[in-house]
Amino acid sequence: MIDFKNAEKIILENTKVLNLMSIKTKSSLNYVLGENIYAPIDLPPFNNSAMDGYAVKVRDLEKVDASKNVVLEVIDEVQAGNVSKKTIKYMQAIKIMTGAKLPKGADGVVILENVKEFMKGKKKYIQINTKINKWQNIRFKGEDVKKGSLVIPCGRIIRPQEIAILAAMGIENINVIRRPNIGILCTGSELIDLNKKLSDGKIYNSNGYALYSLILKYNGIPFDFGFVNDNKNEIHKKINLALNFKPRIDIFIVSGGVSVGDYDFVKEILLKKGLKLKFHKVAIKPGKPLLFGILNDILIFGVPGNPAATFTSFENFIAPVILKMQGKEKLHHPLVKAKLIHPITKRDGRVHFIRGITKANNGYFITTPSGGQSSGMLKSLVDGNSLIIFPAETKKLKKGERVFVKLIDKLKNGEIL
Amino acid sequence: MIDFKNAEKIILENTKVLNLMSIKTKSSLNYVLGENIYAPIDLPPFNNSAMDGYAVKVRDLEKVDASKNVVLEVIDEVQAGNVSKKTIKYMQAIKIMTGAKLPKGADGVVILENVKEFMKGKKKYIQINTKINKWQNIRFKGEDVKKGSLVIPCGRIIRPQEIAILAAMGIENINVIRRPNIGILCTGSELIDLNKKLSDGKIYNSNGYALYSLILKYNGIPFDFGFVNDNKNEIHKKINLALNFKPRIDIFIVSGGVSVGDYDFVKEILLKKGLKLKFHKVAIKPGKPLLFGILNDILIFGVPGNPAATFTSFENFIAPVILKMQGKEKLHHPLVKAKLIHPITKRDGRVHFIRGITKANNGYFITTPSGGQSSGMLKSLVDGNSLIIFPAETKKLKKGERVFVKLIDKLKNGEIL
Repeated sequence: MIDFKNAEKIILENTKVLNLMSIKTKSSLNYVLGENIYAPIDLPPFNNSAMDGYAVKVRDLEKVDASKNVVLEVIDEVQAGNVSKKTIKYMQAIKIMTGAKLPKGADGVVILENVKEFMKGKKKYIQINTKINKWQNIRFKGEDVKKGSLVIPCGRIIRPQEIAILAAMGIENINVIRRPNIGILCTGSELIDLNKKLSDGKIYNSNGYALYSLILKYNGIPFDFGFVNDNKNEIHKKINLALNFKPRIDIFIVSGGVSVGDYDFVKEILLKKGLKLKFHKVAIKPGKPLLFGILNDILIFGVPGNPAATFTSFENFIAPVILKMQGKEKLHHPLVKAKLIHPITKRDGRVHFIRGITKANNGYFITTPSGGQSSGMLKSLVDGNSLIIFPAETKKLKKGERVFVKLIDKLKNGEIL
Repeated sequence: MIDFKNAEKIILENTKVLNLMSIKTKSSLNYVLGENIYAPIDLPPFNNSAMDGYAVKVRDLEKVDASKNVVLEVIDEVQAGNVSKKTIKYMQAIKIMTGAKLPKGADGVVILENVKEFMKGKKKYIQINTKINKWQNIRFKGEDVKKGSLVIPCGRIIRPQEIAILAAMGIENINVIRRPNIGILCTGSELIDLNKKLSDGKIYNSNGYALYSLILKYNGIPFDFGFVNDNKNEIHKKINLALNFKPRIDIFIVSGGVSVGDYDFVKEILLKKGLKLKFHKVAIKPGKPLLFGILNDILIFGVPGNPAATFTSFENFIAPVILKMQGKEKLHHPLVKAKLIHPITKRDGRVHFIRGITKANNGYFITTPSGGQSSGMLKSLVDGNSLIIFPAETKKLKKGERVFVKLIDKLKNGEIL
């Protein structure tokens, strides 16, 4: 039996960041960027108008004052997406829409609201009653992003704004860190499917559902191999299926069958298949019989079958692996200090993870157990949002004491949403 | 032109929570539960053993002391999932695995580690050297959840633990609030597709990508109607397509074509189709030409086509709508007070949303603009995580001043991940 910190360390030491894959920019939300993105073009790609108005030579407007307007001849009109072939000369203007390329000869744009348009014969003119500064209302080529500059650093978690700027630069595909494929197998002759009627001695397979949705919570890709009876042959077959599955799985989670019971075959089968066992049993509660090893480069977790043990083992040990594999180590559960509002005691020397409810309270956190702590109980997880860490050597945590709490869910004024 | 608060209010007043739909429990992660969940069964469904060991009559062990063991006859063995047909009588025991139903006559379980098994003839016996308490190592029917009790309240955002307990109760389908279907149409003759070579005067359609991924960020369902030239007929056709699309869209976002330019046809076309215009133009920057109305019960947003204006309009006005429609109003962007570390000024009387980078710093937040603030610029969004709110009536925010900041992205020690 090893201690919690050690187990954590061994698991993360054996976890590698996964390889890169190419993905459509449009589908890359929440992936981790696996390369530095340098700008292949300037943004904007050309000088253009920031407003709807008239492109002019600013010098021509110098004569404008309170008593004097200036009249310019309109020689062309340029819509966004088009380019004027004309060059603005002395006392000329070109009508221009927002985003359209600035015509040659122009060095400023007067906004539409500040001109009066009129016709004289077949010619169009504008009357202007305001001066403007040189380069006013003009966006310069490369003013947002210079061609060749670093736009997004490798390792960034891709948000909508990264996708927007990639698109703006015409980048259709990018390299991201792949997400892990994760196999799930539940063992236990007591398990039945949700569409069956509950018969005596049986329970519904909730662990399969818990593991499946926990994997999704951390952006892993779940492959559910269902559940099997506590039967050596059946377990062996299913494990073979999972280990040889295409796509190749990176992590394999087996729930149940890892304790000391007569029907706990999982460890024996895995060892026979060549498992390099890293540890079995951790001084924690719930989840003591946790097993971890490596087989064909696949990280193997044997998690105890009690629902709360499966759940907290996942949050403590497997979630950090999934995050690290994707390059999201920084998204580890935050550990905060919180004031305990009810005392708790224990007798053994293991670290306990007490399912709790933690709330922000005027600038500090308060926390309290959220219900029954038996390894079989799920309700306290449903009523909670965090794990209160009850250290190994401590037997009593007093009311008012500051304790470390692992926040496994989002807090919003402490409310479970 | 209306002010920001008013625009926000009008939009949310016109937003309804969507109807319910039935969904597989396994696919319900992050949906909002649309019903109270009462337990259809007890959890656990029957008294069972919490450990691998022997079910006994506790009274039989009363004679155990330092010098005296007790020997019991083993009359059966019960694996999890099976039920023993025998009843434990005086000086008898039944071997039992974790999770197996407690046999009749038993009122305690001695763990495997505390017994010695031996055979005498064809009969099996155990020798026990510890006393146990009545009901020790037994989990009672209904001790986690009582049949008929409220397990998950309506309105809860479904996490893995909710999915686990629903599965444990055999609930295969639940009612959740539907997610909105959201149509996107980008307008602008300057737009080209990412797989095309950039020609003079053209830009890549980044807004389509931004809107698509922003919708996913808030769990909406995007329907991308691509982009069209600034041509009345083309725009009209695409709008018709979107408004009559199956599945029916709940929100329709048109980017570009809502300002005062000669080719800004969107408002005119929508009004002809019967748009109930709620407002056009808001005293904000970026994003002044924002248009909002209702047509055939579809919420219509005309967002200005400048990339930063499209983006901030979405975060400010459309994200709250998507959240409210799904029953996730509580997930609104947090508004925090932060200390400004660089002064900023403006000249107009509009509310400015300054793209900024905000970090936690020893218990308070610090914030600063993250780059150029032109409506066309995207890089400051990529380098930022928040919008600094520069109030309408204020012209200067001094260094060190406390300002309100809207956090649009996750903070992890202020780092952009």
